[in-house]
Amino acid sequence: MLVIMDLNATESEIKKVEERIKGFGYQAHFIPGRDRLTIGVTGNRGVEERLYLESLPGVLQVIQITKPYKLASRETHQENSVVQVDNVQFGDGNVVMIAGPCAVESMEQTLRIADAVASRGAQMLRGGAYKPRTSPYSFQGLGEKGLEILTKAREKTGLPFVTEVQDTETISVVAHYADMLQVGMRNMQNFTLLKAIGKAGKPVLMKRGMSATLEETLMSAEYLMVNGCRDVVICERGVRTFGNHARNTLDISVVPALKQVSHLPIIIDPSHSSGKHYSVIPHALAGLGAGADGLIVDVHDRPEEALCDGHQALLPDEFSQLMDVSKGVCAAMGKEIGTKKKNK
Amino acid sequence: MLVIMDLNATESEIKKVEERIKGFGYQAHFIPGRDRLTIGVTGNRGVEERLYLESLPGVLQVIQITKPYKLASRETHQENSVVQVDNVQFGDGNVVMIAGPCAVESMEQTLRIADAVASRGAQMLRGGAYKPRTSPYSFQGLGEKGLEILTKAREKTGLPFVTEVQDTETISVVAHYADMLQVGMRNMQNFTLLKAIGKAGKPVLMKRGMSATLEETLMSAEYLMVNGCRDVVICERGVRTFGNHARNTLDISVVPALKQVSHLPIIIDPSHSSGKHYSVIPHALAGLGAGADGLIVDVHDRPEEALCDGHQALLPDEFSQLMDVSKGVCAAMGKEIGTKKKNK
Amino acid sequence: MLVIMDLNATESEIKKVEERIKGFGYQAHFIPGRDRLTIGVTGNRGVEERLYLESLPGVLQVIQITKPYKLASRETHQENSVVQVDNVQFGDGNVVMIAGPCAVESMEQTLRIADAVASRGAQMLRGGAYKPRTSPYSFQGLGEKGLEILTKAREKTGLPFVTEVQDTETISVVAHYADMLQVGMRNMQNFTLLKAIGKAGKPVLMKRGMSATLEETLMSAEYLMVNGCRDVVICERGVRTFGNHARNTLDISVVPALKQVSHLPIIIDPSHSSGKHYSVIPHALAGLGAGADGLIVDVHDRPEEALCDGHQALLPDEFSQLMDVSKGVCAAMGKEIGTKKKNK
Amino acid sequence: MLVIMDLNATESEIKKVEERIKGFGYQAHFIPGRDRLTIGVTGNRGVEERLYLESLPGVLQVIQITKPYKLASRETHQENSVVQVDNVQFGDGNVVMIAGPCAVESMEQTLRIADAVASRGAQMLRGGAYKPRTSPYSFQGLGEKGLEILTKAREKTGLPFVTEVQDTETISVVAHYADMLQVGMRNMQNFTLLKAIGKAGKPVLMKRGMSATLEETLMSAEYLMVNGCRDVVICERGVRTFGNHARNTLDISVVPALKQVSHLPIIIDPSHSSGKHYSVIPHALAGLGAGADGLIVDVHDRPEEALCDGHQALLPDEFSQLMDVSKGVCAAMGKEIGTKKKNK
Repeated sequence: MLVIMDLNATESEIKKVEERIKGFGYQAHFIPGRDRLTIGVTGNRGVEERLYLESLPGVLQVIQITKPYKLASRETHQENSVVQVDNVQFGDGNVVMIAGPCAVESMEQTLRIADAVASRGAQMLRGGAYKPRTSPYSFQGLGEKGLEILTKAREKTGLPFVTEVQDTETISVVAHYADMLQVGMRNMQNFTLLKAIGKAGKPVLMKRGMSATLEETLMSAEYLMVNGCRDVVICERGVRTFGNHARNTLDISVVPALKQVSHLPIIIDPSHSSGKHYSVIPHALAGLGAGADGLIVDVHDRPEEALCDGHQALLPDEFSQLMDVSKGVCAAMGKEIGTKKKNK
Repeated sequence: MLVIMDLNATESEIKKVEERIKGFGYQAHFIPGRDRLTIGVTGNRGVEERLYLESLPGVLQVIQITKPYKLASRETHQENSVVQVDNVQFGDGNVVMIAGPCAVESMEQTLRIADAVASRGAQMLRGGAYKPRTSPYSFQGLGEKGLEILTKAREKTGLPFVTEVQDTETISVVAHYADMLQVGMRNMQNFTLLKAIGKAGKPVLMKRGMSATLEETLMSAEYLMVNGCRDVVICERGVRTFGNHARNTLDISVVPALKQVSHLPIIIDPSHSSGKHYSVIPHALAGLGAGADGLIVDVHDRPEEALCDGHQALLPDEFSQLMDVSKGVCAAMGKEIGTKKKNK
Repeated sequence: MLVIMDLNATESEIKKVEERIKGFGYQAHFIPGRDRLTIGVTGNRGVEERLYLESLPGVLQVIQITKPYKLASRETHQENSVVQVDNVQFGDGNVVMIAGPCAVESMEQTLRIADAVASRGAQMLRGGAYKPRTSPYSFQGLGEKGLEILTKAREKTGLPFVTEVQDTETISVVAHYADMLQVGMRNMQNFTLLKAIGKAGKPVLMKRGMSATLEETLMSAEYLMVNGCRDVVICERGVRTFGNHARNTLDISVVPALKQVSHLPIIIDPSHSSGKHYSVIPHALAGLGAGADGLIVDVHDRPEEALCDGHQALLPDEFSQLMDVSKGVCAAMGKEIGTKKKNK
Repeated sequence: MLVIMDLNATESEIKKVEERIKGFGYQAHFIPGRDRLTIGVTGNRGVEERLYLESLPGVLQVIQITKPYKLASRETHQENSVVQVDNVQFGDGNVVMIAGPCAVESMEQTLRIADAVASRGAQMLRGGAYKPRTSPYSFQGLGEKGLEILTKAREKTGLPFVTEVQDTETISVVAHYADMLQVGMRNMQNFTLLKAIGKAGKPVLMKRGMSATLEETLMSAEYLMVNGCRDVVICERGVRTFGNHARNTLDISVVPALKQVSHLPIIIDPSHSSGKHYSVIPHALAGLGAGADGLIVDVHDRPEEALCDGHQALLPDEFSQLMDVSKGVCAAMGKEIGTKKKNK
């Protein structure tokens, strides 16, 4: 930790800062600059004490150098983490393709779409049974019935599935059926939920919040990890900016930035970032180009009948097209779609 | 609802849109423009069907005119709502001053600060017993013990208190002690929590999410209201932007904008927007100037010992100064601090 | 244009709006909704009159349907524009690779780097002679001498070059030497400069402003086009958001969105969006995945000596690597790097 | 300057950084931390060398401590600057009220409005003669004729006027007529223009760019100051965020933040931030509450006829109301509207 003093900090202000640092049991190192003093602090444990120093007179700024996340940090875990979900692997250097309807609407709809994406090469199924909706008047999902339908779809296709857990009340029922639990973007800082999901014994797909910094995203992963779940995959699905030409601004820059500081896998949701049918494939390929470990894509065979976000779903044939181009893009990058053979 | 057609929409595309509108049981009105067709839709119920039309070929854009929120809208409730919390009133035209520590740390600390703000004219007490924290390693609050301390502080000062409910598990215990329940900004779209808090039978202070639009904010209020809580006060505490010279960007523009479309009261949290000791009072006075119905302010008598956000707390004497200037600012605007006499 | 009336608009307010519409010589079409009136306006010329109606009492909102840009719109020019710069083509379906130093620093440095990128397959050279810098104390470029150096590099390598025009005073000198004029992102709404550059008789590469909407970007292109320059290429180089893990947030979503509404080519600048050496290639490949018509990349063989932005330059060998992967990614998308043979 | 090394930086990487620091002629101070090395650099001149060090292997981050602006910094000029424009003073502790039409449309319109605002207590006149407009098809101002009209209005009312300079070509003519030159927000980083305006010998009102950080804003002020103009007033007029309920998000937090680091006066433009008639006064009073040194307000007596931004203009009677409430708000803050008597 570094404490930058005001240009005009007085002797007694400096002394008070030094005393406080020593009061915490740390060491203070004076680094006189051209026109101001910086005090290096060593022996400190982390983020906690930063702000108390900042409120002292004569202190301009306190700079935290050590990252506040530990388990999610690449500094303490240099190898990429590989997250296993049934026979699917995230982070092994290849690309995972997750596809399915935004919402589970009926047995027929889900089986139809599950078949469609399985036969076109998806490795994992997605579908919402519990749907958090901005409006209390919107369709809120089929609940446990939706989970049963997804289970049936898994039986028929052999694909494991990921589905959202919306609250602590439903963790156990969702964990009973699902292969991977999804934390929605609105819940990325629902810490009570994160703690409980961390203990549920299942791999987790955690969506980045709409205006979460990279550090906050990793702190939320840390909540999961410190509570027992080491199998965390991050999902970028667009952030909120001034832009109004897409539903959200897909922030592909977070992919290389996350990989720089963390060992966790990261995938892209091009459907929710795009929000528009015609731009899903461009967003998806951009995500692959940025180095994402996978994609999670809305597919619907009758989008005009969808109860949720039909405007952003790919048709099965468009999903085929995405698969074809993705294979080529991955090959150019030295990757494949699907789990690495040698890792099996 | 208005459906804007592409410049080059074909006859058959137009026909298909018309058929779908009629299929929903609505009426379609053709409005030929200089170079494109707009179709007015009447008889529709609301937001639900918007997106299905948007996915039809030949449709450029669908414009929703009717607001998706009903109970929170000024169109259905033209008078300002007045929210009563014990003998305190929000939205009666006057200004409510809430003050107290960010976190309840101990009986002594809380009673000291409660006395300090009560004697200086605060009408309501604030203090966190359950603290959502970005880091799993940070102080997370005293829990129910914190609520007991706040209750003691209420007994001593006569001031009702507001405190955050972090999850559904603790609603009943918080509601047992507190006069007003706070929804934190990270939970503004935790719909399970909103539904449950809406049924708790207490007035609610709902903080606007860090990147929530006005419409989303009112939709979350709608979740509370449709579940039974009509006593909702909104709180602006800063939004996330590119700016880095304050903890958050206090969006005072939301005050007049909300009052234009909604009847709900809105207050300002200058401590969390500012994040810096020296700018709390400027943020507070800006909020009053914008027309806010109240302020909620962190006060601490020993900020350098605070377990949470000490750097943004006002000292008791600074709170006195805020009270003094606020009285003058309110008077200039034809308001007072405190409940309107005639309304008692 | 559509005029949405307040729910409680009075008869006389409605009448006044109707009169004003007719006063402009337009037609007013009444579209009664479930609970409010919308007035369709036809015969209007464009954006100008929008705001006068919005200031009338009883008007909730005025919705402009016709886009304010004309020449840049795909509605009036359905085919993709192909912009020719010497023997290089933007927008023909293939991908153009522009590379070179951020700033021209000396004859030796520029010739060395120009050779390096030419021999590795770049089709066009970049390099700044006039450098707009945030600080008045930073290196501001070599000026005309820089242009002479770039001309020499063109002679040696055969590659045409693009360079920034910073002000009207230097348009003629830059246009004398350069093959393509660049408008910097800080000048995207410098309308005096746009008008003058539009008349300079050279193709233009216009960088999107750091917080420019798509509509504003196309309005600025419109300034160039209405003044005579039809050869406009847009460049996305990252936008400003709350994110702090990259220099800017590369907004790849603008690529498909722009192509939906405009016929102009668009390229990506991954160096300025990334700002960090290690993430330039991921940003570049994301741009290609999103469908960009080209890339413009900083390359420097001695980045630690660069006078400008050395931290974001690729080394020549890294540029080779980018070229290799890009070829594969383009092939997967049915494209090539370089001008389409059939178009020659 | 502080150089933070990677956790795993090697001996030779550290040595290379040290050598480079010494190569610049500076001193390197080693500050070993719990788990990583920080190197303090002293003797450096400023911002220039930061990035070269950042591109070295083993370097995690370089932290610049000394602010890159010098003349605008409070560290080198501790007293508030007072900017004198004729008999008006900005920054003397009181509040300056500037009012007038957005655009000069005609002699009659301007004289009418100038009379209206002068008789209601404005101390300075505003009005655009050269109007930068997003659309090339919009009204672009009367040019020099507009300046003559403003001069006439000054003669009649005795109020000095401020008006925008859009480009270097018109600096001399604007400076010939105007009392204060305005730099528009789109030109805040038009460095050629800033340099030239800095030499024009007139006080300058510089609008903050729509997404300019505080540091960038002060760097642009620095451009003016280093070129000779010490009389710079900053103007906050709203920034661009995700918010869509106002034209821009008025960032009142910049007022106390700027005053913390700079001695320059800052005023608020509530008309351009609000964009809506009904919210101009709330924005204005918020600006005063935040501590602004003045306001610049659009006033129009026939807003429905205005050629520019009529929807955001106050009527003369509303301006009276703003003046009345402002007087009270200022009094509560220990200020007055108008120049301090003792300073005359």
